[in-house]
Amino acid sequence: MRLLAILGEGLADPATPVICADDLGLSRGDGCFEGCRVVTGTGGVSAVDKLEAHLTRMGHSAAALELPFDAGSWRELVTSACAAWHEPGEAGMRLLLTRGRAGSGVPTGLLTISPLPSFYPRQRREGLRIITLDRGTSSAAYTDAPWLLGGAKTLSYAVNMAAQREAERRGADDVIFVSSDGDVLESPTSSVVWSVGRTLHTTPTGASGILPGTTQQLLFARAADQDWQAVVARASVDDLHAADVLWLVGSVRGPVDVVALDGRYRERHTAVDTEIRQMVGFPAP
Amino acid sequence: MRLLAILGEGLADPATPVICADDLGLSRGDGCFEGCRVVTGTGGVSAVDKLEAHLTRMGHSAAALELPFDAGSWRELVTSACAAWHEPGEAGMRLLLTRGRAGSGVPTGLLTISPLPSFYPRQRREGLRIITLDRGTSSAAYTDAPWLLGGAKTLSYAVNMAAQREAERRGADDVIFVSSDGDVLESPTSSVVWSVGRTLHTTPTGASGILPGTTQQLLFARAADQDWQAVVARASVDDLHAADVLWLVGSVRGPVDVVALDGRYRERHTAVDTEIRQMVGFPAP
Repeated sequence: MRLLAILGEGLADPATPVICADDLGLSRGDGCFEGCRVVTGTGGVSAVDKLEAHLTRMGHSAAALELPFDAGSWRELVTSACAAWHEPGEAGMRLLLTRGRAGSGVPTGLLTISPLPSFYPRQRREGLRIITLDRGTSSAAYTDAPWLLGGAKTLSYAVNMAAQREAERRGADDVIFVSSDGDVLESPTSSVVWSVGRTLHTTPTGASGILPGTTQQLLFARAADQDWQAVVARASVDDLHAADVLWLVGSVRGPVDVVALDGRYRERHTAVDTEIRQMVGFPAP
Repeated sequence: MRLLAILGEGLADPATPVICADDLGLSRGDGCFEGCRVVTGTGGVSAVDKLEAHLTRMGHSAAALELPFDAGSWRELVTSACAAWHEPGEAGMRLLLTRGRAGSGVPTGLLTISPLPSFYPRQRREGLRIITLDRGTSSAAYTDAPWLLGGAKTLSYAVNMAAQREAERRGADDVIFVSSDGDVLESPTSSVVWSVGRTLHTTPTGASGILPGTTQQLLFARAADQDWQAVVARASVDDLHAADVLWLVGSVRGPVDVVALDGRYRERHTAVDTEIRQMVGFPAP
């Protein structure tokens, strides 16, 4: 972490602890977050990709957790953070909102900027080796069950992290979660998108509990203007094997193509892959 | 929070922040914890209930998360905290272990002591109004799926907290989670135990993903010495309705009897309830 800002206070020293031991974001994972890409030009001017989409989604997450969320205050904090960040290239920005210290009723808001994860350049260049793992929930588990926090990007990501460690243990880079009844869901930190001809596919939010992907949504909106069809529908792992190109799509990672799925190697399609990556502002592989 | 101690450092000021913004315990709920009861005599001497059982379970949680855990260091930290805690009565102690700051590879360990939650005395006196909620996972979801972290007490408790808020919204005190196929699981922060005649019942850990309860285990061990049978088996909500006495059992809360389940009122059985509470060191209702 190279930059830290506190909601309501402003910039702070990133090396200094700012969270008390009884903050419910720590002790209960009780809060929500966003991960955004910061792009800084050679002149040192920084901007956040699709900030409004992130703030809108964070508002939905906060509402699911019954936490107050003031987009204007966050927008100001992002502006002051960007004004202080001048390292040319890409970086990752996180917005974190917790329920605050136990009994205080005062939420905690933090913003951090960190360098791009060291493995992202390699993944973008070489593509991703993916395993599928059962998420333990059915494709309809989140229907009428708001307490399960479906579609909310909470701080309770322990299972997502454990799944990524399982992938690493099996010599893979990342995971696609599958529901207990065989539906493709999402990746621990990304959406799943695939192409068949000139049609892009992804899986539905809602009953499945998966997170709406801001980069996937931008991609689908732009693709519709550029001779692509876009379909949101339930799918199986067999559908992924049958796809022309399969991507994990994240805000900081961008779209990255999958070169192996459950041990089956996939041909790379550089022209289509490049087109999709560039459509949402990421470089060719 | 009234007392704070840091693993490897010792006592610290509870009002001072000790966690950095990029600690993975905060940003990912990536860590584990224990909640224990501290009992302090009128002379000011403090002791932790069944500390070894808590340390053993925390070791299992840490192993599931692939975090290092040295029981001896934690035992020393607990000893120094108890030596500094003199308020007569009961209090709650938490042990927290996180993966530490991103990229550091150095876990964070914290111990806190807080007063008993303000609503526990009322709950113990008046009993609990409970609703059942679907947990979204089947009774066998955690079989051969270590990435789901079944049986590990992780910091990712956002769903548990949301379920308790749902209970409050419905005018209840707490929740019993039920699997998608109708099995009784556990409460967000307690085990579920019930009696039929002189037989105590609870639900199995393992495939269900539920946490082994240290107080439930102590209760079953002691009950076996005192003319009770003890059964661990799958059960439905109908079985709970048919029980003589139904309890939520937690380390700090103790066993507290349920006086209403999904809106159906339950007769209180003070003699049996008192016997069970006292068996594990808690006062009569």
